Amino acid sequence: MPTTAGRRRARGGAARRRAERTQSGVRSAPVIHRRVPLYEAIGEEGLDIIERNAETVLEETGVNFMNNPPAIARWKSAGAEVDGERLRFPKGMLRELIRSAPESFVQHARNPQRSVEIGGANTVFAPVYGPPFIRDLEGERRYATVEDFRDLVKLTWMSPHLHHSGGTVCEPTDVAVNKRHLDMVYSHIRYSDKPFMGSVTAASRAADSVAMARILFGERFVDENAVLLNLINLNSPLTLDDTMMGALEVYAAANQACVVSPFIVGGAMSPVSVAGTLTQILAEVLVAAGYMQLIRPGAPVVFGAFVATIDMNTGAPTFGTPEASHVLYGAGQLARRLGLPFRSGGGLCGSKLPDAQAAYESALTLFPTLTAGANFVLHAAGWLEGGLVTSPEKLIMDADQLGGLQKFAEGVDLSENGQAMDAIREVGPGQHFLGCAHTQANFETAFWRSEIADYRPYETWSEEGSPDTQAIARARCIEMLAQYEAPALDPAIDEGLQEFIAKRKGEEPDALV
Amino acid sequence: MPTTAGRRRARGGAARRRAERTQSGVRSAPVIHRRVPLYEAIGEEGLDIIERNAETVLEETGVNFMNNPPAIARWKSAGAEVDGERLRFPKGMLRELIRSAPESFVQHARNPQRSVEIGGANTVFAPVYGPPFIRDLEGERRYATVEDFRDLVKLTWMSPHLHHSGGTVCEPTDVAVNKRHLDMVYSHIRYSDKPFMGSVTAASRAADSVAMARILFGERFVDENAVLLNLINLNSPLTLDDTMMGALEVYAAANQACVVSPFIVGGAMSPVSVAGTLTQILAEVLVAAGYMQLIRPGAPVVFGAFVATIDMNTGAPTFGTPEASHVLYGAGQLARRLGLPFRSGGGLCGSKLPDAQAAYESALTLFPTLTAGANFVLHAAGWLEGGLVTSPEKLIMDADQLGGLQKFAEGVDLSENGQAMDAIREVGPGQHFLGCAHTQANFETAFWRSEIADYRPYETWSEEGSPDTQAIARARCIEMLAQYEAPALDPAIDEGLQEFIAKRKGEEPDALV
Repeated sequence: MPTTAGRRRARGGAARRRAERTQSGVRSAPVIHRRVPLYEAIGEEGLDIIERNAETVLEETGVNFMNNPPAIARWKSAGAEVDGERLRFPKGMLRELIRSAPESFVQHARNPQRSVEIGGANTVFAPVYGPPFIRDLEGERRYATVEDFRDLVKLTWMSPHLHHSGGTVCEPTDVAVNKRHLDMVYSHIRYSDKPFMGSVTAASRAADSVAMARILFGERFVDENAVLLNLINLNSPLTLDDTMMGALEVYAAANQACVVSPFIVGGAMSPVSVAGTLTQILAEVLVAAGYMQLIRPGAPVVFGAFVATIDMNTGAPTFGTPEASHVLYGAGQLARRLGLPFRSGGGLCGSKLPDAQAAYESALTLFPTLTAGANFVLHAAGWLEGGLVTSPEKLIMDADQLGGLQKFAEGVDLSENGQAMDAIREVGPGQHFLGCAHTQANFETAFWRSEIADYRPYETWSEEGSPDTQAIARARCIEMLAQYEAPALDPAIDEGLQEFIAKRKGEEPDALV
Repeated sequence: MPTTAGRRRARGGAARRRAERTQSGVRSAPVIHRRVPLYEAIGEEGLDIIERNAETVLEETGVNFMNNPPAIARWKSAGAEVDGERLRFPKGMLRELIRSAPESFVQHARNPQRSVEIGGANTVFAPVYGPPFIRDLEGERRYATVEDFRDLVKLTWMSPHLHHSGGTVCEPTDVAVNKRHLDMVYSHIRYSDKPFMGSVTAASRAADSVAMARILFGERFVDENAVLLNLINLNSPLTLDDTMMGALEVYAAANQACVVSPFIVGGAMSPVSVAGTLTQILAEVLVAAGYMQLIRPGAPVVFGAFVATIDMNTGAPTFGTPEASHVLYGAGQLARRLGLPFRSGGGLCGSKLPDAQAAYESALTLFPTLTAGANFVLHAAGWLEGGLVTSPEKLIMDADQLGGLQKFAEGVDLSENGQAMDAIREVGPGQHFLGCAHTQANFETAFWRSEIADYRPYETWSEEGSPDTQAIARARCIEMLAQYEAPALDPAIDEGLQEFIAKRKGEEPDALV
């Protein structure tokens, strides 16, 4: 049972490398603790405008709370203006309400070494969430299954730069919709020991997730600590539906953490401008985060923002675009001014294949994600085709890039050793540094090395079949799955979980929604 | 003959789109004028340390000026300490010397609309420079020819986000080494009207480049204006050879601009650390920029830094790595403190194919390039396989990404229209923004649209052969080359150039170096 915060800090080279090897043979990097500056894309004056506009939207236009009379009643008592399902908020009311939310919190994992702190200068990477399809290791694009789900949990667990097991890494479409959450939560517990996410597709499924967490961690521990992090998407524009709010109500009551996240394709679910989109995001987050605090003051809540732009020619969502980066940077600034942890970004792309388009778009989301100060990053690896498809190959490719970002975040070493004046003195004009004492002492950790990129000379690479990145990643996936060994789990807990799942599955007929 | 500065500024949507259509049918974006902040990766204290260390290196270790007695004599008169070919410099001497160099200058193109200002908040993109090989449109990797060279000049000319025609876009290996510079300079003049680079592989070839520029622009104009920008690579560590310095001497005397650029694979040609590499870069640039000012005070000189890291397992240069980004950001900071325009970055990668590895690495060089404030960006498009290979497909893929960076650089619109409060009021909760007045007024220019990324739905894309990015770019290249029409060139100038080339080619036998 975890009893410590398991707070981890980024470390220097040798310590970091030691930390990457654990008793189980799985390498695990500590979460990122950023030592480089943030990038502030919007000036203070611009942020003031956006904040004032968001308050105006909340006061004049308001939001709809759909099919949720108890929520309306709660808001009425709290001082909101009620007009049917429409709620309007006096200026400043919601900012005041969310002052009880923590700036940072620890999400506990069953292995305390893998617990993560979400907030401050930390960045935690989690895999893709939600795709119904998988592009499998035979190159076929098909509906995903629970077996795919397990494989993705295993690959994530083995990837040192994914700090979190995530949630719906793919939809296990071969299991009934009203039962698959049980298999998903169980898979995260059984095949990984990293922190994970609960179900949000119905209040009862959120309650099942909490019940399973209690079997794993014990009731009291769950009541006092965040062990589940849950993705509450908001129906932009300005709508909070009873399904997502029902799940939020369960998690808030259980003191579990939620990411409240406007899900936006800019131009469709928000204005076709960066400042307008940020205004709407801020208004929506203020309401949902406020609602969480209304139910349980102090419950951890994360400022979320999922943002794509739209291609007006085809209506397709587009990723890695300059405007998406602007929103990402701006949302990070707004979250910090609000004092909430921030979730956004990831390895987002619209490409159908893990090709150059996928990589350009993903890199141009991932780098801004880090420098925007995102604290929790869903979809950091494995996302393909606008989130319709999970790609195990891309999961491995992206996860490798995350290792590079982790190194970037460590910043520039300005110690005597980093200054390397002895090396320059020793080598002098016209010689090379390969053999000098400073290089010998530092070469192992000095420069990041991709584990996927092909660094071989053309001739060798060509003789060995001229593999592209996708082919290299595919071979790596197959190799990793063959090497996978599950982390130990207390047999009594495993039995308790399986009994709970069998009982719950027996209580309901299979359903399609 | 161009007589105005041709200074261009980034513009808002509609104006920008108009500017992209010119009389010749070729679209041309103005150079980037950055309105977003720079990213300052290293703090002031760290930069102070690096600057002090560079002065120490110059005073204690110094540099070698190889086979160049006149240079040694110049330096002796200027106050350097001479010890054979080794020169050492009293602290502060070189900083004082380069105070005559301009912070910003205009490089003129034969079409004044395409002249570019290099310095300040401007960023100018130029294609890859130097590869002996091409990966051609049939997918074959082979030695490049002068016909390839012409095609690359044409593609660059037609790419709106490449502001500059570059220099050795590939080596025309079917022309003798001592004559190919004539064909290269001629191709830039004949098949493009963007600014271009001169030859640096021998002092005589630099002189030929200046002579051809004089035929094109007139003697007096060349003497008073920069019409050639020339890449002077330094032999790191701390060595300046007679070939490159010979070319620099010619260009400085002719008042033409030079980029003085340490060419560094960190760990081999510099210490295996970021701070040590930056120290060496600064020392080397101070010497070369100082030498340029010694020859002709006020001649435009650019602070260059080409930086790759090394993979210690294979010895291969690596690109898009976190340490390469640190050096890029740090070098930009040092250049600004020195008051010189800055050249670095590009779409660098080690991949053998224009695949995901190529795109990750290129994107993770290009985005830092922009936010590091690079003023002139060589290798912005078309670079493959560590610079051994030019890829026309990747040139088109990268150039498309440059358009995204250009949009990113415009920053967030915080005007009334950008705030879009009317749109939020009009649409309200639960509706969509696609048809609202604000969207109708702004959709054409609001969001950047890639011209290479595939935005079609899976089914359509699949029916049309499931092309990857490379296949799409290849088709685009073929289409562009078929549509190419050369910009007009005064027949008298053309004749003058051809006569000069015939004469110069007749004066020497073919040579291999």
